Amino acid sequence: MEKVEDQNPQQEEDQVVNPWEVSAKDGGKIDYDKLIDKFGCQRLDQSFVDRVQRLTSRPPHVFLRRGVFFAHRDFNDILDAYERGQKFYLYTGRGPSSEALHLGHLIPFMFTKYLQDAFKVPLVIQLTDDEKCMWKNLSVEESQRLARENAKDIIACGFDISKTFIFSDFDYVGGAFYKNMVKVAKCVTYNKVVGIFGFTGEDHIGKVSFPPVQAVPSFPSSFPHLFSGKDDLRCLIPCAIDQDPYFRMTRDVAPRIGYHKPALIESLFFPALQGETGKMSASDPNSAIYVTDSAKDIKYKVNKHAFTGGQETIEKHRQYGANLEVDIPIKYLNFFLEDDAELEHIKKAYGAGRMLTGEVKKRLIEVLTEIVERHRRARAAVTDEMVDAFMAVRPLPNMFD
Amino acid sequence: MEKVEDQNPQQEEDQVVNPWEVSAKDGGKIDYDKLIDKFGCQRLDQSFVDRVQRLTSRPPHVFLRRGVFFAHRDFNDILDAYERGQKFYLYTGRGPSSEALHLGHLIPFMFTKYLQDAFKVPLVIQLTDDEKCMWKNLSVEESQRLARENAKDIIACGFDISKTFIFSDFDYVGGAFYKNMVKVAKCVTYNKVVGIFGFTGEDHIGKVSFPPVQAVPSFPSSFPHLFSGKDDLRCLIPCAIDQDPYFRMTRDVAPRIGYHKPALIESLFFPALQGETGKMSASDPNSAIYVTDSAKDIKYKVNKHAFTGGQETIEKHRQYGANLEVDIPIKYLNFFLEDDAELEHIKKAYGAGRMLTGEVKKRLIEVLTEIVERHRRARAAVTDEMVDAFMAVRPLPNMFD
Repeated sequence: MEKVEDQNPQQEEDQVVNPWEVSAKDGGKIDYDKLIDKFGCQRLDQSFVDRVQRLTSRPPHVFLRRGVFFAHRDFNDILDAYERGQKFYLYTGRGPSSEALHLGHLIPFMFTKYLQDAFKVPLVIQLTDDEKCMWKNLSVEESQRLARENAKDIIACGFDISKTFIFSDFDYVGGAFYKNMVKVAKCVTYNKVVGIFGFTGEDHIGKVSFPPVQAVPSFPSSFPHLFSGKDDLRCLIPCAIDQDPYFRMTRDVAPRIGYHKPALIESLFFPALQGETGKMSASDPNSAIYVTDSAKDIKYKVNKHAFTGGQETIEKHRQYGANLEVDIPIKYLNFFLEDDAELEHIKKAYGAGRMLTGEVKKRLIEVLTEIVERHRRARAAVTDEMVDAFMAVRPLPNMFD
Repeated sequence: MEKVEDQNPQQEEDQVVNPWEVSAKDGGKIDYDKLIDKFGCQRLDQSFVDRVQRLTSRPPHVFLRRGVFFAHRDFNDILDAYERGQKFYLYTGRGPSSEALHLGHLIPFMFTKYLQDAFKVPLVIQLTDDEKCMWKNLSVEESQRLARENAKDIIACGFDISKTFIFSDFDYVGGAFYKNMVKVAKCVTYNKVVGIFGFTGEDHIGKVSFPPVQAVPSFPSSFPHLFSGKDDLRCLIPCAIDQDPYFRMTRDVAPRIGYHKPALIESLFFPALQGETGKMSASDPNSAIYVTDSAKDIKYKVNKHAFTGGQETIEKHRQYGANLEVDIPIKYLNFFLEDDAELEHIKKAYGAGRMLTGEVKKRLIEVLTEIVERHRRARAAVTDEMVDAFMAVRPLPNMFD
């Protein structure tokens, strides 16, 4: 029995987590255990990591090993079906609100690329240019331009064009997709979306009517050019846990209109440089590492702005060691340093005071610089023609091979 | 200064007129003067009838001469622009909720055909299959089937295929149309639609999000295959006055997103056979004349069910004459008997008691039978290929000739 959380998040006393706001009580850290309990999803434990390794015959992604993706809904059903020889498809997305992505934005795409490669399954990527036009003060044209720019960064993550369909809502909504939107909308009252998303009467009706747009890529019939006659295909959605409200709603509606509930695999939030209580913000470029940052930018930001758990003086540091619980360089290495043994070594030495903050930062700068440089090179190779090719409404003949 | 009526119609004490409900106080007659005042539209007086005749060099339609279209918004602007050599386009629509239309359903289409012919302008006809799917308990498939059936009845009214584009929302919404929907939605709060349409929290969100769908055919940019580069083209909407709430909303939003306010020309309601206090109802086939009725059906319904203002006995009738104010045969003849002199004669003789109810009914049966027979023949000649041709997304090269 799944818990469906319907309390207006605006009225909660402690932490607020919804697609537009993530904040903890008194500016503290997000309590993820509490979030799992409140949302009614499940913790993704080691048995899942082992099972994915066994089923795909490849090492589990670092985000899976390290608990970056830490929660799920019905991921077991997806794996059960896969074990029986039934494939699924992946659905993820991005709201194109800014020109340059930061590392936090890349996380779902890096992980989704791994899932696509490991399970050999098709993928649909929704660019919610309509949402950003409605929520932010962006014109239709600017939202569409950002969608294409963001598509280039997404393609640069290495997706297989023979298995991947990227679409902009403004371009693709209509036809089969729109019919599913209407079916979903019929099953959701205004009171219900107020409960799930916290809208008020002063919010414009575009906000009220958007949730079905994000719901329906969960249903294969929304993509007749891909999944015609495969209405029974299951869908797995990798996303950050702040998107859970959309899919609580979707899972509630799905059986009522004859579809499978989509499964979810959900990640932690990527912390701001200033620490887990800070928020990465487009208006504060020093709060995040952007994929457009130069090596010099990265070095400066990490050295100057990364919040650390190191002690004030070298003497104290040698004596007490670093507080790893709050240390941003360690948290970032946890996301991006592939080598488990090296990470373990750094945590041990740094925590015991044998390794200094400067040394950890130096290693982090190397790791981040390599990721960003690699992304920059890949992104530079993405042409407008490639964007058109990924976004063409077309069949994907060998998408399950 | 235009009055924008925002009171929740559900809370009004007297008559309720909105797209889903038309009812007068204590089951009495609709007070149209009050309605004009409440909605803030204008009465369409004789000067407009004369002006239309002068501008189009043809006799004004019987619905215009007899005050069936009795109210308007900015019709003067349309005529001013036309006089300066600027054309406009027409937009009307139908919610496909039933298989067979009744005569009341034909009124906007008969009038729109006249406007198209008289002004030589293009026309878009919206089939709101999404609305009916959302409001009625109809599946997507059934709504779409009814849309095509209704399209045949609409085509049978004689529209010029070289100037007419018929579209189903399920098929056409998307692209430019959807972008305009989002622009409109951004300008309308939930409180606003509650004020205009009387939604409650228990209504599903499809209802809340539908008004922009009916709003945007008012903007030429929603039809790039027709009006590309003509964003300045004005739109005239012939409709029954119960659709006014949608266009009050549309007119409020239009200037905020850079478009002209659409103009309106609005009709009375077509009364039920049982009298103006009755309601034509799909569940009571005797309340209306359907375009599928046989000559025998029409004769039976008029003789048996038409409410009359005649007296109980011939003696009394000869003495007092008929009460024309409540007499349905006279009201129907007012809509459908083209000959002004003959109508005048009948009203005079019947009102004075010289003509009996049976004689008036006999004339009405002739008039209605001819209309229905003519429609049936025209409808039988409409093929599926013609429906496809009218509904093809295509340019209309000579639409203003």
